[in-house]
Amino acid sequence: MTDKLNLLGWTCPRPLQNYPTIVMGHGAGGKMMADLIEHLFAPAFDNEWLGQMGDSTIIDIGRPSSVVRRLAFTTDSFVVSPLFFPGGNIGELAVYGTVNDLAMRGAKPLFLSAGFILEEGLPMETLGNIVTAMAAACKKAGVKIAAGDTKVVQRGHGDGLYINTSGLGLIPADVDIGPQNARPGDAVLVSGTMGDHGMAVMSVREGLTFESQIRSDTAPLNGLVEAMIESCRGGPACPPPACPPGQTHRSAPTKRRPPACPPAIHCLRDATRGGLAAVLNELAGSSKVGIEFDERKVPIRPEVNAACEMLGLDPLYIANEGKLVAILPEEMAEKVLAAMRGHEYGKDAAIIGRVVSEHPGLVTAKTSIGGMRVVDLPAGELLPRIC
Amino acid sequence: MTDKLNLLGWTCPRPLQNYPTIVMGHGAGGKMMADLIEHLFAPAFDNEWLGQMGDSTIIDIGRPSSVVRRLAFTTDSFVVSPLFFPGGNIGELAVYGTVNDLAMRGAKPLFLSAGFILEEGLPMETLGNIVTAMAAACKKAGVKIAAGDTKVVQRGHGDGLYINTSGLGLIPADVDIGPQNARPGDAVLVSGTMGDHGMAVMSVREGLTFESQIRSDTAPLNGLVEAMIESCRGGPACPPPACPPGQTHRSAPTKRRPPACPPAIHCLRDATRGGLAAVLNELAGSSKVGIEFDERKVPIRPEVNAACEMLGLDPLYIANEGKLVAILPEEMAEKVLAAMRGHEYGKDAAIIGRVVSEHPGLVTAKTSIGGMRVVDLPAGELLPRIC
Repeated sequence: MTDKLNLLGWTCPRPLQNYPTIVMGHGAGGKMMADLIEHLFAPAFDNEWLGQMGDSTIIDIGRPSSVVRRLAFTTDSFVVSPLFFPGGNIGELAVYGTVNDLAMRGAKPLFLSAGFILEEGLPMETLGNIVTAMAAACKKAGVKIAAGDTKVVQRGHGDGLYINTSGLGLIPADVDIGPQNARPGDAVLVSGTMGDHGMAVMSVREGLTFESQIRSDTAPLNGLVEAMIESCRGGPACPPPACPPGQTHRSAPTKRRPPACPPAIHCLRDATRGGLAAVLNELAGSSKVGIEFDERKVPIRPEVNAACEMLGLDPLYIANEGKLVAILPEEMAEKVLAAMRGHEYGKDAAIIGRVVSEHPGLVTAKTSIGGMRVVDLPAGELLPRIC
Repeated sequence: MTDKLNLLGWTCPRPLQNYPTIVMGHGAGGKMMADLIEHLFAPAFDNEWLGQMGDSTIIDIGRPSSVVRRLAFTTDSFVVSPLFFPGGNIGELAVYGTVNDLAMRGAKPLFLSAGFILEEGLPMETLGNIVTAMAAACKKAGVKIAAGDTKVVQRGHGDGLYINTSGLGLIPADVDIGPQNARPGDAVLVSGTMGDHGMAVMSVREGLTFESQIRSDTAPLNGLVEAMIESCRGGPACPPPACPPGQTHRSAPTKRRPPACPPAIHCLRDATRGGLAAVLNELAGSSKVGIEFDERKVPIRPEVNAACEMLGLDPLYIANEGKLVAILPEEMAEKVLAAMRGHEYGKDAAIIGRVVSEHPGLVTAKTSIGGMRVVDLPAGELLPRIC
């Protein structure tokens, strides 16, 4: 099946046809590496920034006004196995993963870097198809690859290829989204079905077939986040947070949030490795709050549920690559939910729970049979190399 | 010998002592990965940006004035083998390599990201020592690691560890350094001895011993570049470039350089993979000029020369990790050379040649016996995995 997934239609340009596979010389800084850059990477990612061909790329950010003065910066390496899976491949993942990490701080993603570690023997066609997929993904997400690097390691010291992408974005002045910002009373939302990506990769690895194929949800979430932020603008302000006991507002040591904060999203996180369970635990820990949610409200595809049951996995712990968790003031929840459902990547969005002041750092779930359970951070390995 | 090089004195903190080596769970997004971040990466790289623990890191660039509005952005993956070598290790290389790529555009390096691809079975002590070395290197170079990522691949799919670093820097308004900027008449300088890094790595791989050990030159070059730029400020302006035949200055299509440009460095490049030969070829190609240099003026350590002769290698093609090539107006050359020699990483700097209008794209060398030879781009693999 992976063979079929590889058929993305890249045609090897003539100057590379002498090399059906990657060889060590493609990473040595000489003529062969220059050929690879000139005939594969440069035409695929063609843009004026990458075209500078300098040791680093110069990005003119104009004369930032008070509207934009904060950058978002992130990095992610991708080692997913297999390289192609139903619904996507390592190239799309590498673009969308980093785009999403920028979007989760409310940033508008602008530029990515791409660092390739190629294994000697990688078919040139595989690389060509992956690079083509990356270029299409960049277009879809509205970002440019502004810097790149290629290294080659000997056969047996890699797994085809690994890709690192780092990303740069600009954050609008009225946005303050961060993992410490959840507060009691906030609503907890998810943007869609959980577990699709992890189970799509697993199904290929395990050779599982289901009545309907499970496809990865890999997608750029910056457009969805923009729609969510926009839906908050101009709404009623939140009440000022209560001061700690014994302190007046003036003497309160933290001035992070203004007395009456504007309507805003408090936390966003894409539910990748460790799935929904890991994200909720991280947010509860960072914000020092408790989180309660209702398992029955978490959207899960029937085929994903069935596959999880067969393999003895809990879908709450399975990775997603195109889904986010949002925490925001309860009074904004319906409005933001409507904005999410109106977006192609938020059609199945749902309010699944709320933030509480009890049991800070702890996540609990109302189970399908009406009981209550603690949802812990996953301990160790669940599904290795899922991204 | 590599065992001895590994002794950098990192002590494993108690919470990690259950794991003498990296296991798959360290990359799975759960409790074990959180432990690794909390007890290894976070204390080593401790800073407020990394401390945000968001999907991406927010960097406040203030309200950039007209003085600074351009960012430099770059990426590099490091796959050097062995991980430790005389004079350095993969961690230092990963920091200095990216710092230098920023400095080569005249940028002040500020922030790095660090993406680790760890192989199952990597001794925790090795990782600890490398991370400690990276932290020290960041301090020396004056940069912060603002974003990070950890992935683990199964035994046999890596080589201990690979590190990707991306970098962000700010470019002063009066700086315009780029590979297209060389013009006929310019002087060509190198900042010191050539080939030290490549031969240091080779000597470990081949088990060679020399009377005096060859050590890698790995070093941050941002301070040296700053001194070079400073030495140009306030000097006499260059004459305006001649217009192409048939065009007046107004009608000339490129306005990149103002009519009488300020005294300035035109090109900088660190001579890594492919060595001095590759860099000079790239600059000649990008600027569409010829370059002539005198082999006898290129500083090379006697022990590096001897090792190259023994292995049949040409030192002009051997990688450096703490040396740069500079191209600048001839009238500034002595002044900049003096500034370089006054800096700890430029003591052996030398003027080695000049830019000519003849044979654009071609690099020629006056040989030690007085002849002339073409110095080509290296074809394929010379020394694999040198950085």
